[in-house]
Amino acid sequence: MSDAPFRQITIVGLGLLGGSIGLAVQAFLPGARVVGYDADPVVRSAAKARGLAHRIADDAHGAAQGSDLVIFCVPVGAMGAAARAIAPGLSSEALVSDVGSSKATVAAALAEALPGHHIIPAHPVAGTERSGPDAGFAALFRNRWCIVTPPADADPGLCARLIAFWEGLGARVETMDADHHDKVLAVTSHLPHLIAYTIVGTASDLEQVTQSEVIKYSAGGFRDFTRIAASDPTMWRDVFLSNRDAVLEMLQRFTEDLTELQKAIRKGDGAFLFDHFTRTRAIRRGIIEMGQDDARPDFGRSDHQPEG
Amino acid sequence: MSDAPFRQITIVGLGLLGGSIGLAVQAFLPGARVVGYDADPVVRSAAKARGLAHRIADDAHGAAQGSDLVIFCVPVGAMGAAARAIAPGLSSEALVSDVGSSKATVAAALAEALPGHHIIPAHPVAGTERSGPDAGFAALFRNRWCIVTPPADADPGLCARLIAFWEGLGARVETMDADHHDKVLAVTSHLPHLIAYTIVGTASDLEQVTQSEVIKYSAGGFRDFTRIAASDPTMWRDVFLSNRDAVLEMLQRFTEDLTELQKAIRKGDGAFLFDHFTRTRAIRRGIIEMGQDDARPDFGRSDHQPEG
Repeated sequence: MSDAPFRQITIVGLGLLGGSIGLAVQAFLPGARVVGYDADPVVRSAAKARGLAHRIADDAHGAAQGSDLVIFCVPVGAMGAAARAIAPGLSSEALVSDVGSSKATVAAALAEALPGHHIIPAHPVAGTERSGPDAGFAALFRNRWCIVTPPADADPGLCARLIAFWEGLGARVETMDADHHDKVLAVTSHLPHLIAYTIVGTASDLEQVTQSEVIKYSAGGFRDFTRIAASDPTMWRDVFLSNRDAVLEMLQRFTEDLTELQKAIRKGDGAFLFDHFTRTRAIRRGIIEMGQDDARPDFGRSDHQPEG
Repeated sequence: MSDAPFRQITIVGLGLLGGSIGLAVQAFLPGARVVGYDADPVVRSAAKARGLAHRIADDAHGAAQGSDLVIFCVPVGAMGAAARAIAPGLSSEALVSDVGSSKATVAAALAEALPGHHIIPAHPVAGTERSGPDAGFAALFRNRWCIVTPPADADPGLCARLIAFWEGLGARVETMDADHHDKVLAVTSHLPHLIAYTIVGTASDLEQVTQSEVIKYSAGGFRDFTRIAASDPTMWRDVFLSNRDAVLEMLQRFTEDLTELQKAIRKGDGAFLFDHFTRTRAIRRGIIEMGQDDARPDFGRSDHQPEG
């Protein structure tokens, strides 16, 4: 009766990602049933009120019953505990997946918590700086990449169904191994977040410049960093702890490059600065050509500017 | 016959900022006449074709003739030379201003090039990563801050007219002294640009991660940095050279803070990371409350997403 790649999907953790999956399944995979669960009763109430799933389970034990796909949408440091809580109701036929931002650590945590189960981790590269059960929306994954990281012994049929599931939600899917994923995301996501968190903290600690001045004149570039640095603190703490080696490696390279530019400024070496700044434009062009962003000035934000 | 604060405005340099001023004067100050000049004949032709001014002057000498306001919109390192080129046609009654991103160095360069003239520097905190005569648009300054930095001996009447001019283009105006401006902007704009330029360079130099992967998965946070790092290389080279001391001071603080977070990651100090990441959310809230940005996820970009 249904063409959906899975008959019933359980989502564990109903924040931005989990809530968005719940809404997206209902919007784009009408043949599938979706069950939601969150360890926090306040979040469960909010999820019921927003209709994030067809049914919100009241306890972990019953949440996975009857589901052929269970997706963990909790901070990567909480994956193991969430999996152990769900285990009693979990069918051995079901596919277990997640949406965590680091993959090698999560794969190990899920494998340890759920021995003998089918596990194929995944990471939809999508999000906003908002979090919680009110933050999700059905279109979050549309035209965004989802990276699936099947272990070497993964069942190819289940892997194909997981890919079909994410494509059904509008994502473009790529597969790679977990270690490579963690290196790629260390530079495209984790390091940018770490730097944004740092500079926003630096700005708020200044004595000579007031916080209200920092906020007022943020349109000069700082604003983009504050958006990133407003992301969920628990999620990001766990990302840095779980992808430590790759993050520290990328950070080391960044620091070397920053020191070189610092030296050029100190020496007044304009040619070095100009060459470096010219080179970085090409990457931006690549991103716009790939359709990963809007080329219009201000991303079209000026259309919606407050009139105040 | 006109309520415009200036009768005729000369714009020297017809890139993003100069072109936007030309279009904004025509759109919002209909009583004023605007004359444009650029040292590059190719830019002058493009400016004529786009109608960036009522008249495009063919030489520097004639560009300022008859104008009661002359605004230099060239990279900050070129202000002195541009002012000397324009000087022969400049009335001693005219007000001289600019739009440079650093103010103490520019004020000194203009004062040296134009002794005895009225000079009140200004900095509209607005822009996009695009540059050149095709990049400007009339609404660029709407609801953006413009910082006016009058020297101690500035004529109060001229200062009031310059403020009225920027308000006429839609900006919100604040005044402060040049040194304080340079400290504020070092943290809200110059340091963010330096960091964005650095990380985009770091990413493009990696061996283990391909450039196409960096581009593909940029939605994780990196994308915002590439937008900043696509800004005009000449302009930014000059900003770092002209505001060197304040930039190096802010960079030193940033590096200390980054080292502290790096150490927390290495030691696995989750509590330190969590506390730091929680603190930075407040600044984001302040920016949204000030109306300096759009609170919607993705700034409403999802409305305009390519379908491909």
